[in-house]
Amino acid sequence: MVLIVQKYGGSSVADAASIKRVAKRIAAARRAGDEVVVVVSAMGDTTDELIELARQVTPLPPSREMDILLTAGERISMSLLAMAIANLGVAAHSFTGQQAGVITDTVHGKARIIDVTPGRIREALDSGAVAIVAGFQGVTQYTNDVTTLGRGGSDTTAVALAAALDADVCEIYTDVDGVFTADPRIVPTARRIDRITYEEMMEMAASGAKVLGLRCVEYARRYGVPVHVRSSFSGREGTLVTDELEEEDIVEEPIISGVAHDRSEAKITVVGVPDVPGKAARIFEVVATSGVNIDMIVQNVSAAATGLTDISFTLPATDGQVATAALTAAQPEIGYASMQYDDTIGKLSLIGAGMRSHPGVSAKLFSALSRAGINIEMISTSEIRISVVTSADHLDDAVRAVHSAFDLDSSEGEAVVYGGTGR
Amino acid sequence: MVLIVQKYGGSSVADAASIKRVAKRIAAARRAGDEVVVVVSAMGDTTDELIELARQVTPLPPSREMDILLTAGERISMSLLAMAIANLGVAAHSFTGQQAGVITDTVHGKARIIDVTPGRIREALDSGAVAIVAGFQGVTQYTNDVTTLGRGGSDTTAVALAAALDADVCEIYTDVDGVFTADPRIVPTARRIDRITYEEMMEMAASGAKVLGLRCVEYARRYGVPVHVRSSFSGREGTLVTDELEEEDIVEEPIISGVAHDRSEAKITVVGVPDVPGKAARIFEVVATSGVNIDMIVQNVSAAATGLTDISFTLPATDGQVATAALTAAQPEIGYASMQYDDTIGKLSLIGAGMRSHPGVSAKLFSALSRAGINIEMISTSEIRISVVTSADHLDDAVRAVHSAFDLDSSEGEAVVYGGTGR
Repeated sequence: MVLIVQKYGGSSVADAASIKRVAKRIAAARRAGDEVVVVVSAMGDTTDELIELARQVTPLPPSREMDILLTAGERISMSLLAMAIANLGVAAHSFTGQQAGVITDTVHGKARIIDVTPGRIREALDSGAVAIVAGFQGVTQYTNDVTTLGRGGSDTTAVALAAALDADVCEIYTDVDGVFTADPRIVPTARRIDRITYEEMMEMAASGAKVLGLRCVEYARRYGVPVHVRSSFSGREGTLVTDELEEEDIVEEPIISGVAHDRSEAKITVVGVPDVPGKAARIFEVVATSGVNIDMIVQNVSAAATGLTDISFTLPATDGQVATAALTAAQPEIGYASMQYDDTIGKLSLIGAGMRSHPGVSAKLFSALSRAGINIEMISTSEIRISVVTSADHLDDAVRAVHSAFDLDSSEGEAVVYGGTGR
Repeated sequence: MVLIVQKYGGSSVADAASIKRVAKRIAAARRAGDEVVVVVSAMGDTTDELIELARQVTPLPPSREMDILLTAGERISMSLLAMAIANLGVAAHSFTGQQAGVITDTVHGKARIIDVTPGRIREALDSGAVAIVAGFQGVTQYTNDVTTLGRGGSDTTAVALAAALDADVCEIYTDVDGVFTADPRIVPTARRIDRITYEEMMEMAASGAKVLGLRCVEYARRYGVPVHVRSSFSGREGTLVTDELEEEDIVEEPIISGVAHDRSEAKITVVGVPDVPGKAARIFEVVATSGVNIDMIVQNVSAAATGLTDISFTLPATDGQVATAALTAAQPEIGYASMQYDDTIGKLSLIGAGMRSHPGVSAKLFSALSRAGINIEMISTSEIRISVVTSADHLDDAVRAVHSAFDLDSSEGEAVVYGGTGR
């Protein structure tokens, strides 16, 4: 007997018909003899509708109340799914994050799981029932307040439960067939990846690939939970995210796993910073103190004549206002000349564990971009990733050029659907 | 400083605009220096929409899952209301039934409150905040499963919290101006009742008056909680339900409080029952064992020649199928000839504590009905109530005739609106 944790996203349970379809898949898994725990997101657009209701009531909803509001969505989907499974003659019990023992810190809106005590889930499984668990939510340790885990939170719930229950696999059902070598909406010839390491998947997620959240993959790696990303709309095998590749896979391991892209960042350039020790550090301190995470940094070589330098960095565009306000307030102290803000940038990342041992990867990347006439504004690298910032206009062309240059194009087309709520 | 528990029904929080309107009323009460606890129902039609979703998924939703589904409605309304109050600069925290300490038995769908431990509510009040509590829901004592309290459950939540917090008054806000001498849709000249005793209010509720639930009034009487029923759409005083009337009220106490009516019952007549000891008792045992509550009973005088008698009783029409099936199964054992089922009946009830000491009330009632040409099928009485069953067709005429005969008509008209979800 195998213990499977399955997670279904909002697009897989968008309406009564979808819920009944998913229920059939779950009932079949249970009837095949497996123990099944299901983590479910809110139905389709429920979350957006609740956010809109909050907006109608107040421009500044308190985060504690916002979390209570949003978690109503999963209560609805989880109870309906349990009903639909029961209607097929398979026992099913639904559990809130609290009932499932998902304990978090107290940061409303993006809480982190600090413990999972799934006693009631284990009991339900022992009684032969399927356990349905509300994704995206938990409860604080001492005050029993409801929290939400932020974007991709349901994936994290699923992996955390899989770890706590020592599950054999965590299946993430979504509306695409798995993880692709690039976004198929931009690169129609993108291939589905059969297997990928946690490390590479983390770089993909951090670089803008939306199919799995970064936290979820971090959690899976820490606890060694195999994650199978697959479509709830087909019976196909998807992408297995795992610790190590099989012996045979290593032999055939491609140098490059895929090309990720990200349009959600912006670039701030601080112009005319006095080139004296501590000034650059002070800029990043000011930004960090305002609660903003910086991604890439470039400091130009100082012009000796002026003793001034320019510093550019990227950050989530949603934090742009906070960061520029903090820097403006610190201008007298830091003594920079001016500041530029650009939210029309795009980031392309090439990811692959194989690039560790294969020199020449970056040369090939830059020559592909150059041949396509694309200007590079910033560069950053890790052992298994190279990222470049381009103008947003050129990002799609850049992704296609790089995807081709590294022979990632598939010979056969795959039917894929994109969408989903990201919970 | 006074502690007020306010309860708002679904029609009072039907949309964002209504929520903001109610928030202003609550903020004003808090600013006036009172401690305020608010119990809130689900928004407008939310409950009906959730029930419809469940119906689309399965014809027989398990009651545990149904309770989880339905309680999502109050999570949405309570968090939105807390946000709207916070937006007016008044601190507000929302609490689920569980967080508010509403402990119930395990009967899903119509659980009974067995304890209320409002420690977190008390803390919120001590911190100066308004506490918003989800109505209609509780949690089981040992398993922490979510339960709902059934029809009128939010009123019961409000009264139970008022009792546990030793509140000065429990205000039930609804879409009518209070309790009326009859349903104003049937009797346009019906008067609002200023004060009414728990006892009379219980008879009104049990006889079909929908403005307050029976359980809620029972609870209020047991703990001596004064209940003020009033409209959330006006600033007028409503009806005070209280332990005893004031000295001056007793002097002017009217004989009759009001006329209630009920269309929700049906009548079963068991024809040709052998008139031997134990047969009638057996009929009621069979019905009781099927879980059905009987209201009124009439046994005809036995026809000596045949040794057979007829027995009629009324019951909720929703239980008609269960009861007739149970009786049909028991026909060989009981040996009755046939059974008749009639769901086109109506029940009129005249209620008033004054009728205890005023003879002639029943004579006046029967003569009024007789003058109006209305046939009486069954009669039952208590110390402060007389109920009669008529045909459903004649019920409205009967209510108007009795209302007039007891001088309950108002000289001035009152603007009232009916509706609401009954939660």
